[in-house]
Amino acid sequence: MIGQPNLDEDIINFASDNTSGVDLEIFSVVEQAAKSSAMPYGDDVFTSKLQTITNEIFEKRVSIFPVATGSAANALALSVVCPPYGSVYCHKESHLEEDECAAPEFYIGGGKLSLLSGEKAKFSAEILRAKLEVKSPAPPVHHSPAAAVSITQATEIGSVYSIDEIAAISDVARYHRLSLHMDGARIANAIVSLGVTPAEATWKSGIDVLSLGATKNGVFAAEAVIFFDPDKAADFEFRRKRGGHLFSKHRFLSSQLLPYLEENKWLRLAENANLRAQQLGKGLQKLSQFSILHEVDTNMVFVKMPVSLADGFKRKNCLFYTWGQDEGYIFGRLVTSFNTTEKEVDRFLEIASQLAN
Amino acid sequence: MIGQPNLDEDIINFASDNTSGVDLEIFSVVEQAAKSSAMPYGDDVFTSKLQTITNEIFEKRVSIFPVATGSAANALALSVVCPPYGSVYCHKESHLEEDECAAPEFYIGGGKLSLLSGEKAKFSAEILRAKLEVKSPAPPVHHSPAAAVSITQATEIGSVYSIDEIAAISDVARYHRLSLHMDGARIANAIVSLGVTPAEATWKSGIDVLSLGATKNGVFAAEAVIFFDPDKAADFEFRRKRGGHLFSKHRFLSSQLLPYLEENKWLRLAENANLRAQQLGKGLQKLSQFSILHEVDTNMVFVKMPVSLADGFKRKNCLFYTWGQDEGYIFGRLVTSFNTTEKEVDRFLEIASQLAN
Amino acid sequence: MIGQPNLDEDIINFASDNTSGVDLEIFSVVEQAAKSSAMPYGDDVFTSKLQTITNEIFEKRVSIFPVATGSAANALALSVVCPPYGSVYCHKESHLEEDECAAPEFYIGGGKLSLLSGEKAKFSAEILRAKLEVKSPAPPVHHSPAAAVSITQATEIGSVYSIDEIAAISDVARYHRLSLHMDGARIANAIVSLGVTPAEATWKSGIDVLSLGATKNGVFAAEAVIFFDPDKAADFEFRRKRGGHLFSKHRFLSSQLLPYLEENKWLRLAENANLRAQQLGKGLQKLSQFSILHEVDTNMVFVKMPVSLADGFKRKNCLFYTWGQDEGYIFGRLVTSFNTTEKEVDRFLEIASQLAN
Amino acid sequence: MIGQPNLDEDIINFASDNTSGVDLEIFSVVEQAAKSSAMPYGDDVFTSKLQTITNEIFEKRVSIFPVATGSAANALALSVVCPPYGSVYCHKESHLEEDECAAPEFYIGGGKLSLLSGEKAKFSAEILRAKLEVKSPAPPVHHSPAAAVSITQATEIGSVYSIDEIAAISDVARYHRLSLHMDGARIANAIVSLGVTPAEATWKSGIDVLSLGATKNGVFAAEAVIFFDPDKAADFEFRRKRGGHLFSKHRFLSSQLLPYLEENKWLRLAENANLRAQQLGKGLQKLSQFSILHEVDTNMVFVKMPVSLADGFKRKNCLFYTWGQDEGYIFGRLVTSFNTTEKEVDRFLEIASQLAN
Repeated sequence: MIGQPNLDEDIINFASDNTSGVDLEIFSVVEQAAKSSAMPYGDDVFTSKLQTITNEIFEKRVSIFPVATGSAANALALSVVCPPYGSVYCHKESHLEEDECAAPEFYIGGGKLSLLSGEKAKFSAEILRAKLEVKSPAPPVHHSPAAAVSITQATEIGSVYSIDEIAAISDVARYHRLSLHMDGARIANAIVSLGVTPAEATWKSGIDVLSLGATKNGVFAAEAVIFFDPDKAADFEFRRKRGGHLFSKHRFLSSQLLPYLEENKWLRLAENANLRAQQLGKGLQKLSQFSILHEVDTNMVFVKMPVSLADGFKRKNCLFYTWGQDEGYIFGRLVTSFNTTEKEVDRFLEIASQLAN
Repeated sequence: MIGQPNLDEDIINFASDNTSGVDLEIFSVVEQAAKSSAMPYGDDVFTSKLQTITNEIFEKRVSIFPVATGSAANALALSVVCPPYGSVYCHKESHLEEDECAAPEFYIGGGKLSLLSGEKAKFSAEILRAKLEVKSPAPPVHHSPAAAVSITQATEIGSVYSIDEIAAISDVARYHRLSLHMDGARIANAIVSLGVTPAEATWKSGIDVLSLGATKNGVFAAEAVIFFDPDKAADFEFRRKRGGHLFSKHRFLSSQLLPYLEENKWLRLAENANLRAQQLGKGLQKLSQFSILHEVDTNMVFVKMPVSLADGFKRKNCLFYTWGQDEGYIFGRLVTSFNTTEKEVDRFLEIASQLAN
Repeated sequence: MIGQPNLDEDIINFASDNTSGVDLEIFSVVEQAAKSSAMPYGDDVFTSKLQTITNEIFEKRVSIFPVATGSAANALALSVVCPPYGSVYCHKESHLEEDECAAPEFYIGGGKLSLLSGEKAKFSAEILRAKLEVKSPAPPVHHSPAAAVSITQATEIGSVYSIDEIAAISDVARYHRLSLHMDGARIANAIVSLGVTPAEATWKSGIDVLSLGATKNGVFAAEAVIFFDPDKAADFEFRRKRGGHLFSKHRFLSSQLLPYLEENKWLRLAENANLRAQQLGKGLQKLSQFSILHEVDTNMVFVKMPVSLADGFKRKNCLFYTWGQDEGYIFGRLVTSFNTTEKEVDRFLEIASQLAN
Repeated sequence: MIGQPNLDEDIINFASDNTSGVDLEIFSVVEQAAKSSAMPYGDDVFTSKLQTITNEIFEKRVSIFPVATGSAANALALSVVCPPYGSVYCHKESHLEEDECAAPEFYIGGGKLSLLSGEKAKFSAEILRAKLEVKSPAPPVHHSPAAAVSITQATEIGSVYSIDEIAAISDVARYHRLSLHMDGARIANAIVSLGVTPAEATWKSGIDVLSLGATKNGVFAAEAVIFFDPDKAADFEFRRKRGGHLFSKHRFLSSQLLPYLEENKWLRLAENANLRAQQLGKGLQKLSQFSILHEVDTNMVFVKMPVSLADGFKRKNCLFYTWGQDEGYIFGRLVTSFNTTEKEVDRFLEIASQLAN
């Protein structure tokens, strides 16, 4: 990590989209919830309105279950669609595999993640099919059976599955009778990037269950699991409760998600993040000492730069994660956020330009 | 449940202490956190200050881990002190057993709660000792071995273990080499009731690990697991993460707990709740149609009343849980809160008085 | 434990029915299996014949799955009928609760055993109903939901549920939509005692899934889980495999169970054990220093005797478990077996008679 | 699968080493156990002698725990050395990953197998080191921590790790403070192939815990977990019991393992299997239509042949597993056994020769 955290105004923080605070309009609804009394465990008006607006946004009756973290959303969602001896197929660079400390396996009750390769942190329908069709000479009972497939949208490197790619994966999943889960920690950024509707991005492309992210995009701590077939969600409530994820003051979660989803707020916030990443990527590309590593589809810019420049950013209070280090060069990940400003990016580019000379 | 929830000002809500909102001073610190940027996962100033103040309050170096729910705090704490084949001894009316949908067993990895009896929702050292000393003719390997003991302070009916009672239980636990956990969802109310220091109420009486409650006492959604021997907490972080309980914007939790613990705020909030319960209990006792069922040690009043009165309260927008029903009588639980006002209780008593005539 | 184990011929071993060896006719079939080659994992003639004969014995098409231990049979059976957050209702003195080191909770994935009282180690339909109908004021999601009921036949003290008692329990289970499991570690002894058919003792009385015991009754290490509705057994094979309970040389299990079930061998073996226990009980009853504690329904005799007598048996190489000790008296459990002889019992009674004088 | 199983004498069965029966000398000791009485749960002379002889064979005081299946041995062993959130590093073609239906993950309580590549179904110290040293920019708590390494000896394709290879892997494991497990389902074949002592093959090369196989090499159903540091085995007994793997007539397991290990029986049996595989491989190599795919280090021969030949073997009652199929060719796995005779192999080669013409 470059730089040390503090509340200093002069810091430019591109370490992650979870370093940002909370959108002020969203916060004002949380404040209402904080200042009023309500029945616990979801029996409140914020939660009932949230159900209504979610149905509208996804153009069908769905079941939505707020939780506080992305790992909880993913692990709980998968525990519903995968038996304890089953396998979930996902990308080897997915958050599920790399960044959840075996939460999916814990909630599933001991199953497996079966890892797929593929460029840009995405796997294709073909790669999935090939792995599913590997035949073992042993009878099926010896092998943990495939139960579900999970795709990350947008991926850990900010790339996006196209609607056609998702539909093709869904076809393979359906053929093998597997549920299709989407880890949508950055689904808003992906929807904006694709220019489709939330319904098109999800169930209309074959998604059965969605982890809808919000924490990285302007709220404090709120995500939701959405089942597009409410009948499939039958025992989710028991699973959420026994995971310790049912909030007594449940309106805290709903009062974040309600304004987040209302009036396309979530998509507007994501659009800002995406635009700032575009601005950042284009600006750095102009400087010969920076190489952009992946196309900028959403709100992340991966860049290779001389180690000396990385040190320079550090001295200038510009925060971002770095790793690797290869013949004097280092890799950096810069993440923009719902409240990153054009001016901040300009200032970062100015510093970059100075350091590069 | 009597009455239906809404945001109507005229409701008097004694359904639970989790129906209240958030203390305004606490909320203003949350607001600061919401409006600033910080590094994720606890690498922020709110969290580091929280560690400092917790050490001060408990008069020793401890390890504190914020989480969002009481079930998470309890289940995670027990998973550290109980192996997956072990047993936790607790009261049969405890929250662990009755209200957590097998969360402890899930986090422990399949162990048992071994249930103890005892009046007022408390078990004694004697009852614990007797159960631990039951000898089976079978070799020990057949039986899930005792690993930990958990007491609830205050209990589910608002009663409080005295310091001597805790110390006696601790002696038995230590003799059998068991860890001693305290479910302190209402620990502040108990400390106020006992008139002791937080250190005396916990590790000085033999508690090894504490679930420190805050949600029911003025915050939004924050509890903490405190290990009084930090060495025993070695793998807690991995367990919290894989349970999906590590918040990326971790400052949301810390910014609630910090002002909660500072300047005895938590004890002052609990004191108000306790005083209002006293007022309520004494007031109802004067009315011949109400029988108070348990001594009012903290912030709960259990009362038996004619069914017709319960219906009357319902019509008057007075909310509380009821159950049972026995020859025209019904049981009610009235819970006061950090922000219950003297006036509210007066009004409730006035309504009670009118209904009783 | 009285006495030390050795292979000395002069020992009379009533410690347990698992101290006996293997019936010789059964062993000769195991020998055939040992001396031949066959495909693994149940694709062998012993296993296919076992399926056929089990259907005949139970007068319907069932699914039978051999495993090696009673704990495996119980835990696997329950894992099919109870979700990981659910509860199994059973007697507080059941083998499930007392003698399986939390195996059911492990296989279920973290659920609970909810314990019932009742005399003679049996609970009644009324006790079950009362426990299931306890109403909590909290919403159902907080409490681990009831999923299954398990009865032990014969019980840990050798008592037997009558057909009417089972049918009444089954009615309650069905009303609450719970599966009904029978731990039949000593089912053969119970069937002989009741004088009914295997079908009457099980599915005709409402049992959904049976742990069929054999180990205690003349085989080496073989039990079986039988689902009376084969559709309910769909995922049992995966669960057995991941528990490490699928034998590659599966015919080892089947070659024990096949001769065990053929030509009523199992019932004839159990009949001998029951008769010997009758003989033993009646003989001891005649001696004033022994008090028989429970009626002798199957193959166990519980007896209270002076400590000095217990010591005497020990010196005479008579083995049985003892516990308690109360004003000079001690409790003993004497278990007869498929190969206990009339002569052995006579000799034991003779020793008892000598010691008592 | 080529051919259908039956007890026909004329079948040549190279499907697996688990299709064979039981060595007759071993069986005669099982018979002794079957015909005698003994105390249960390991309190018998077979078990105590087994402990003694195991210490002798491995030239140190060890802890040995018999179980009935290889999956049980592996999963239980790993559950002791890996916490529920941890990872075990193993080869992607290992039995652990491919053939145990997630048993390791179940017993560990939800952890991960982290898969390594490498030729001949072996990974090298270098491959292990590289994977362990991959640095993530995220803090460690997000990633399931490495806890143990497992190697399969001999591997699933019959190849063998050299002593130097094991020692190098052990060095990496020790550097990273990981336990080193050996899945020795075919350890006897490997020891014979390496020409070393059991101690050299295991703890002297850095192995901490061994799954000692026997089932594939002349017994009915018996394996054992051996801890080379008995202190590390402290809670194994509870884990075995709650897995349902503690046999009441425990002598059944010990009476197989005792004669298996006595007087080098296990090594002599494995030697025969290895020699027969050599004979088979060399014979097939002479026939131009067969290509041997891997060097024959132990008791398996992998061979590519025309599909028409495979069909021919089927008609001639020669059983072995086949898979793939590639431009008229198919892959076959031929496994020899402790009781495969020179004559059988000759006959197979004769049939091969006839079919090939």
